[in-house]
Amino acid sequence: MSYNTFGHLFRVTTWGESHGPALGCTVDGCPPGVPIDEAAIQHWLDRRKPGQNKYTTQRREPDQVRILSGVYEGRTTGTPVQLMIENTDQRSKDYGEIAETFRPGHADISYWQKYGHRDPRGGGRSSARETAARVAAGGLARAVLAALVPDLEIRGYMVQMGPHVLGPERDMDEIEKNPFWVPSAQAAEDWAAYLDGLRKSGNSCGAAIEVVARGVPEGLGAPVYGKLDTELAAAMMSINAVKGVEIGEGMAAAALTGEDNADEIFLGNDGKPVYASNHAGGILGGISTGQDVVVRFAVKPTSSILKPRASITKSGQPTEVVTKGRHDPCVGIRAVPVGEAMMACVILDHLLLDRAQTGGTRGKIG
Amino acid sequence: MSYNTFGHLFRVTTWGESHGPALGCTVDGCPPGVPIDEAAIQHWLDRRKPGQNKYTTQRREPDQVRILSGVYEGRTTGTPVQLMIENTDQRSKDYGEIAETFRPGHADISYWQKYGHRDPRGGGRSSARETAARVAAGGLARAVLAALVPDLEIRGYMVQMGPHVLGPERDMDEIEKNPFWVPSAQAAEDWAAYLDGLRKSGNSCGAAIEVVARGVPEGLGAPVYGKLDTELAAAMMSINAVKGVEIGEGMAAAALTGEDNADEIFLGNDGKPVYASNHAGGILGGISTGQDVVVRFAVKPTSSILKPRASITKSGQPTEVVTKGRHDPCVGIRAVPVGEAMMACVILDHLLLDRAQTGGTRGKIG
Amino acid sequence: MSYNTFGHLFRVTTWGESHGPALGCTVDGCPPGVPIDEAAIQHWLDRRKPGQNKYTTQRREPDQVRILSGVYEGRTTGTPVQLMIENTDQRSKDYGEIAETFRPGHADISYWQKYGHRDPRGGGRSSARETAARVAAGGLARAVLAALVPDLEIRGYMVQMGPHVLGPERDMDEIEKNPFWVPSAQAAEDWAAYLDGLRKSGNSCGAAIEVVARGVPEGLGAPVYGKLDTELAAAMMSINAVKGVEIGEGMAAAALTGEDNADEIFLGNDGKPVYASNHAGGILGGISTGQDVVVRFAVKPTSSILKPRASITKSGQPTEVVTKGRHDPCVGIRAVPVGEAMMACVILDHLLLDRAQTGGTRGKIG
Amino acid sequence: MSYNTFGHLFRVTTWGESHGPALGCTVDGCPPGVPIDEAAIQHWLDRRKPGQNKYTTQRREPDQVRILSGVYEGRTTGTPVQLMIENTDQRSKDYGEIAETFRPGHADISYWQKYGHRDPRGGGRSSARETAARVAAGGLARAVLAALVPDLEIRGYMVQMGPHVLGPERDMDEIEKNPFWVPSAQAAEDWAAYLDGLRKSGNSCGAAIEVVARGVPEGLGAPVYGKLDTELAAAMMSINAVKGVEIGEGMAAAALTGEDNADEIFLGNDGKPVYASNHAGGILGGISTGQDVVVRFAVKPTSSILKPRASITKSGQPTEVVTKGRHDPCVGIRAVPVGEAMMACVILDHLLLDRAQTGGTRGKIG
Repeated sequence: MSYNTFGHLFRVTTWGESHGPALGCTVDGCPPGVPIDEAAIQHWLDRRKPGQNKYTTQRREPDQVRILSGVYEGRTTGTPVQLMIENTDQRSKDYGEIAETFRPGHADISYWQKYGHRDPRGGGRSSARETAARVAAGGLARAVLAALVPDLEIRGYMVQMGPHVLGPERDMDEIEKNPFWVPSAQAAEDWAAYLDGLRKSGNSCGAAIEVVARGVPEGLGAPVYGKLDTELAAAMMSINAVKGVEIGEGMAAAALTGEDNADEIFLGNDGKPVYASNHAGGILGGISTGQDVVVRFAVKPTSSILKPRASITKSGQPTEVVTKGRHDPCVGIRAVPVGEAMMACVILDHLLLDRAQTGGTRGKIG
Repeated sequence: MSYNTFGHLFRVTTWGESHGPALGCTVDGCPPGVPIDEAAIQHWLDRRKPGQNKYTTQRREPDQVRILSGVYEGRTTGTPVQLMIENTDQRSKDYGEIAETFRPGHADISYWQKYGHRDPRGGGRSSARETAARVAAGGLARAVLAALVPDLEIRGYMVQMGPHVLGPERDMDEIEKNPFWVPSAQAAEDWAAYLDGLRKSGNSCGAAIEVVARGVPEGLGAPVYGKLDTELAAAMMSINAVKGVEIGEGMAAAALTGEDNADEIFLGNDGKPVYASNHAGGILGGISTGQDVVVRFAVKPTSSILKPRASITKSGQPTEVVTKGRHDPCVGIRAVPVGEAMMACVILDHLLLDRAQTGGTRGKIG
Repeated sequence: MSYNTFGHLFRVTTWGESHGPALGCTVDGCPPGVPIDEAAIQHWLDRRKPGQNKYTTQRREPDQVRILSGVYEGRTTGTPVQLMIENTDQRSKDYGEIAETFRPGHADISYWQKYGHRDPRGGGRSSARETAARVAAGGLARAVLAALVPDLEIRGYMVQMGPHVLGPERDMDEIEKNPFWVPSAQAAEDWAAYLDGLRKSGNSCGAAIEVVARGVPEGLGAPVYGKLDTELAAAMMSINAVKGVEIGEGMAAAALTGEDNADEIFLGNDGKPVYASNHAGGILGGISTGQDVVVRFAVKPTSSILKPRASITKSGQPTEVVTKGRHDPCVGIRAVPVGEAMMACVILDHLLLDRAQTGGTRGKIG
Repeated sequence: MSYNTFGHLFRVTTWGESHGPALGCTVDGCPPGVPIDEAAIQHWLDRRKPGQNKYTTQRREPDQVRILSGVYEGRTTGTPVQLMIENTDQRSKDYGEIAETFRPGHADISYWQKYGHRDPRGGGRSSARETAARVAAGGLARAVLAALVPDLEIRGYMVQMGPHVLGPERDMDEIEKNPFWVPSAQAAEDWAAYLDGLRKSGNSCGAAIEVVARGVPEGLGAPVYGKLDTELAAAMMSINAVKGVEIGEGMAAAALTGEDNADEIFLGNDGKPVYASNHAGGILGGISTGQDVVVRFAVKPTSSILKPRASITKSGQPTEVVTKGRHDPCVGIRAVPVGEAMMACVILDHLLLDRAQTGGTRGKIG
């Protein structure tokens, strides 16, 4: 059992609370000999770092990662890699009330019901701050993938913010140019206006994120509970505030006919199968086919809002909760690098699993 | 790692292929002393059994379960329970072509790419026939749950068939009265007409299923990768043909504001929290709150259709695939008892986990 | 957690009781494409089969194995392999008393204390009959090893029976010529006389078994809890009646000095390291070095004896236990093939693990 | 798979190298609400701390533990506990040669063969310094056990140093009075003289340690691969330099007859079973009976000695190794608190497992 671990062979255990002295992750099973240093991991952490624009929490955390073990002279040794991020901006005074009152939509009440004792500062372990450790692990996973599958590319971006849904066009060059990682200049503009309004009114909104992996080797994933899509669903659903996960066509598959849904197969010029469409999201029977692996997930609106909501206290008294403090009006934004990190970890894990069982040999076509 | 196992403490390993001599599951970790017999498990298997009406495959399988171990004098012993179902109607001649041709939408190609050797008869291991073993395991899980949490109730039903989406009303008394387990007499009628048309034209359609667990104890689930919703997402996504999973509000959460999404909390007459709504689907921070746990998943259309689709052979030649044989025009129908079984297994597993870590003690409210 | 499973990537879950309808094992993670059939597994089972000579239980079990899944056209498919052995000679009348009385040295009392309900027939799950399933799994593991590491050789033999300890000489050609698998014609003769006497007097004796693996690739095993010796210790200790496990020098290492214990290293003619001695038993820091891997384990005397022993009944009454029925006077004999099977499974498991993490690459010497 | 993790529900992952910036452990699954602070853990670490007398390495490490997560206001929260120990006295100059030369008896060669890249400073991950993290985890386990099973007592002590074997008498009051934790004033004196001689001559010796747990609840352990003795064997064998593990009678069981080995059972005055002897070491069929759980393990002599030993370099050249630096002449001494820590972790883990599966209910006797 692994309450706080994910992965089978590339095993990531995250630890730490929002306002404790530090947080981080222990990564076991990392292949040896892979070039890595703190800067390479920091690159990814900086994307998730709070306080970078007005749409994310104003908590100031440098999120500096330290490698405490498992790396020697710039390369992984194959032993556990410990990545630690110290918390520096822990204004726990902002969170004093939480200890006695349950904030609707937050895990305050469920943690209390389960454990009977919890760290209430900033949500403690249930804080989205935990995802910094995932991004660090994802940075390590990317370094390993770069060594093993150089052509693999993982990109995440927003496809929905509140009621605003991105159309089918994706201008990938726009992703890095706007604070939402949305692949559309027009959407970036519209969404900014929408979010400004929400933020000023003390409200928040949900979002949907899409993560695509291009160049995934065929044959990753294992029937029937170690399916690649099963693991991706778990990985994404484990991110704070996620309420739905889709592979390829996703929930819309329910409305299709078999004729429409079939991704017809042809032989490409390079002797590899090509497909007329990708309803499957790159996965058949839980195993990658070589097509793009496409995952989407929905993030619920930030529960910490200035709008008063009815609730109760620990002693059962009715109360009203207004959450001040520093919060993201749309937590979905910072979920983009987190989703990418999870994708990287899952693909690497399955690459290792496949290498174990099949030795990477493949049935031939053509 | 567990390619074919799910669960942490109530561990279910399924085995067997569509056209092998038998299939079944090995259940390890079952609590001792629980009353169980073959009839109790057969009850649930009979719901999934093929050939019961014109909307499911006409393959005739009695799906008789045998308990080979772990039960003595009508009660579980705490040692592994082996449940075996013999395959009797194995007309593998229906499936001869598959060995050389890849059927679009099926796992033929990905299994071949991964393993380089596979049992092609009826899809082999990738066949939905595997889910019979899940339903058997679910029957055992239900028996244990009945002993530990007598008030728990798990119900699954269809909420969408192709383009036909069920409205918000649910007439639960209708569920057992129609072949679709849809909680609406009108929908049952409309869907029958729609499916008849599809079936005659040799086409198929997708579906969405909702599974609700009522009476789930609060405190089940564990941060941050053993979340109850994480495990449910994995469990449902592991079912054949599932492409999306939602908890509570699901993908629609992306469109909400924080104000709308907050499930306001009050104190009920019984001194327990009550909620004004259930956008959360009964889970906060990955831990059950005592509200109904609500999961939905989408099943893609049956890929085996009479409509010709373009594909290639193993040797890379272009071909056209028309799948004859005995197939469900909507595999989503028989996914209902499977979804229920997965829900039962996941809840039991987390009940045992919670009992291990917290001893079942709870923080008090009021 | 895996109560009844061992292995990480080659995962064996055994199931079944002494007097239930059948027993067997579910093997998950087996590499695909490996030639195997029932006869190949039966070969190993026949070595463990009871009733083959006067020194083992006279229970008559053909121990015929059936492959129910995971093999197609004579090769493994990479999906779970189910191996089943039906119980045929279940004279449970012999065991009637056990239900109410605790036999000293047996698990009757501990199973009762733990579970409060158990299958008492022939010891139920605690019977050494469970080891038949291990031997079947070991047969499969050997087939995979033969494909991956053709030069690997695993041999087990007895090195002690009661007070009779084999000297340092081993005449390996004798192993298959006597019922004790002892590598010495003289010992075989002496031990037969000793065991005849014991058997006639209704007593029993302990034994020690040594299992040696030759040709184990270097680099297997992983620090610090997945060490090869850690796993071997667990594997052997999990065999019924085993009370001690040794690697290389074993318990005698306590008496050595560092000077004596050091296995000095030289470079062999083939450019590989050679060692002046093998106190380490082929494992340093938990990782194989390429030397012979040497394991020994001690089996306690059969607890089922005709000599009366004091005990109590379930209701707490004093009683005297005399165990009639069909029992091995020295269970250690049939532990030989079981130890070999465990060695095969552990080595294969670690071969797959190593392939996953390092890709099988090795640091160069010379 | 868990290369660097042990435990199923109380999961300890250790990380860190001998001469890296820090080492520690991540403990997942710790029950909530248990009183703990750094001082309570430091108490146990201080027993293992180097440099306390002339018989252990003169490396000076304060081994100060810091709790970085999982504890709030003096009690565990049920989320991961991170325990970190910074390395302060890292004279890696002492170890410069190791990078190019393989020290006989050390893991230098096997790590190199496996990983092709390693941290050679002080043995890196293979250093016994890793056991500090185990002792820290054991301190936490003891705190939890104190809350759940107040009467449980775990004591470790040496029973052999080189050729000097302790007789059957144990004067437990002596344990804390001598540097060897040997329960005999006379042995302490004799062993000191012996070890002084060895140390001066630059040699080292092996040792045997016994760890006894008194007050272990009956019913812990699970057939057939999660047996309590199986897990104890793995736990002890995973400690650096251990070559053999025994439960109860251990390897000597091979020489006994069934009549001698049977622990006869009587009913005690408190209505609980009492036994005339404890050959079983408190475990039958892998499950605890309530008797003392008795484990012994042998530690090989320190491989770092001043005596020259033949070896080779990475480039295959013959060489002679003399290991200067600061080393324990008998590493077995500091293995005592490590063995105790492993016992505490295993028992706690199985207590949680038993609570999960059986709910702690017990079959009644009398």
